[in-house]
Amino acid sequence: MAAKQNQENLPVVLVYRRPQFNLPHRNRLSRHFILLDPADSQEPTSSFLSTYAQSVRALLCVGYSTITSETLSLLPSLELIVACSAGVDHIDLQECHRRGIAITNASVAFAEDVADLAVGLLIDVLRKISGADRFVRGGLWPVMGDYPLGSKLGGKRVGIVGFGSIGSEVAKRLVAFGCSIAYNSRRRKPSVPFPYHANVRGLAADSDILILCCALTEETHHMINEGVMTSLGKEGVIINVGRGSLIDEKELVQFLVQGKIGGAGLDVFENEPDVPKELFSLDNVVLSPHRAVFTPESLEALIDLTSANLKAFFSNKPLKSLVEIEL
Amino acid sequence: MAAKQNQENLPVVLVYRRPQFNLPHRNRLSRHFILLDPADSQEPTSSFLSTYAQSVRALLCVGYSTITSETLSLLPSLELIVACSAGVDHIDLQECHRRGIAITNASVAFAEDVADLAVGLLIDVLRKISGADRFVRGGLWPVMGDYPLGSKLGGKRVGIVGFGSIGSEVAKRLVAFGCSIAYNSRRRKPSVPFPYHANVRGLAADSDILILCCALTEETHHMINEGVMTSLGKEGVIINVGRGSLIDEKELVQFLVQGKIGGAGLDVFENEPDVPKELFSLDNVVLSPHRAVFTPESLEALIDLTSANLKAFFSNKPLKSLVEIEL
Repeated sequence: MAAKQNQENLPVVLVYRRPQFNLPHRNRLSRHFILLDPADSQEPTSSFLSTYAQSVRALLCVGYSTITSETLSLLPSLELIVACSAGVDHIDLQECHRRGIAITNASVAFAEDVADLAVGLLIDVLRKISGADRFVRGGLWPVMGDYPLGSKLGGKRVGIVGFGSIGSEVAKRLVAFGCSIAYNSRRRKPSVPFPYHANVRGLAADSDILILCCALTEETHHMINEGVMTSLGKEGVIINVGRGSLIDEKELVQFLVQGKIGGAGLDVFENEPDVPKELFSLDNVVLSPHRAVFTPESLEALIDLTSANLKAFFSNKPLKSLVEIEL
Repeated sequence: MAAKQNQENLPVVLVYRRPQFNLPHRNRLSRHFILLDPADSQEPTSSFLSTYAQSVRALLCVGYSTITSETLSLLPSLELIVACSAGVDHIDLQECHRRGIAITNASVAFAEDVADLAVGLLIDVLRKISGADRFVRGGLWPVMGDYPLGSKLGGKRVGIVGFGSIGSEVAKRLVAFGCSIAYNSRRRKPSVPFPYHANVRGLAADSDILILCCALTEETHHMINEGVMTSLGKEGVIINVGRGSLIDEKELVQFLVQGKIGGAGLDVFENEPDVPKELFSLDNVVLSPHRAVFTPESLEALIDLTSANLKAFFSNKPLKSLVEIEL
């Protein structure tokens, strides 16, 4: 009876997820919150929300489950969305802004894993690891002899686009390889010791490699276009661990096919899970099925962060990873 | 005439290479040395050496061209072998020792490239980059859905076997990823801040990952055997950028096929270019055709080092990268 009383005093959190996205470590969260999950019910989501979620103040958004203005209109008391993802482009930010709904994201929890994959893709492209692996598995080494050499990491000029938690982890790693770092972001960050470029084209012109670590917004949509790739040049390499639509993918394919840039390492694509088939036969690209974001080891960090944001909210303390919405 | 006079005063260096290994940047060296190259002549090598190389004091060994005691017996005046490779196991070290011939190697020039590839192979194995690339290229993403997650680099305990110039560059990089480092080498190095293990099995027992960066000698031949792999354990990963025969390859294949270790990234093999076919179907291994050693960018560093060793020798100064021969 005491346990039930206690449970009833816990704050309610609405779990919002596509059925294919599971909430990991659910039992850790349910010690502190009553989790209201439409996917547990037979009722259609909209009627579930109208019936049970009118007073819900906090929503936990699992994976890339889309949150539209229609969904938000069913939740009149909503004040907070805790996103379990780094990017929040699947959430209607304009409507959240209008309704005064705060959003937190999880890039802090994922930053190290994303940065590790970005560096892994970069070494792979420069040193041709996946291509060489195909060569060996295809039994070609004894037949064809030496596989072409790759190029050296040390001394390369790396331009990081988006210098949040992910970009700064990428920089930390690449400094240890002897790369020089510069960055582009909405504004100069006084605490960052690397040169700042106010626009991406200028950064590309001064870089051998571009690594995309920024959020997808209307402003950053197709920011990597023909002009930027031309500035990056024939030997240039692009690594994308942000979102597919940061790049004009059709242009990228043309630049790669025609040898107008040197190579690419891509974890994200414009129409996932569809990947442009022209890329399948290129040895200077490495293709990853949107797996940057996490490893089992990082789930713990994700749950810690999620839980910390919700606890802060319900006790009127500052949120741990508030997303700045710029419209 | 003056030019010819000057040329005749230059010291003579014998170039020793298999015909498939070219001496890069030959013209840079030929400004300072007269290069005597049997491969330029129609004569069989042994008769060329007997006729022209009796007074040669220095030999430049290109690639992994084997230098046997028979070859050495044709070169009675030889005092120095400058190897263009990191490992020197293709040279009869015992005979060199007996004849008082000094050997220099090139691991300093290659260390960064080898370390980059070691880290690249490690990220690839842990985060399944090559496997995921095969998955995407095979058109499986839209059909099969998510590719399995990899595991996180940060927090992993990495044991580095051989802590020379290559091992220390590997450590420098992995510290930036949040790995903890320990090492094994012939003896403790007072300048190294990481824990030392006197034997490899103890290091394996305390590590999640072993990275092999040591020379192949009689002592290190098959040092990674059944016992060491058992100590490393089921989740353990082995990266080999040293020499194939550091590992008992037959045992390694069995451990991988039976899931008794977690994975491997291999740039070197016991019978190159032959790679055990059992590995071709495994997704937890990354196979590289002995390409760690260099990139075009490093050739400059190699020629600088080679030239510096030869100049030091001919002016009786200390050699830049003398190999300690321990028999």
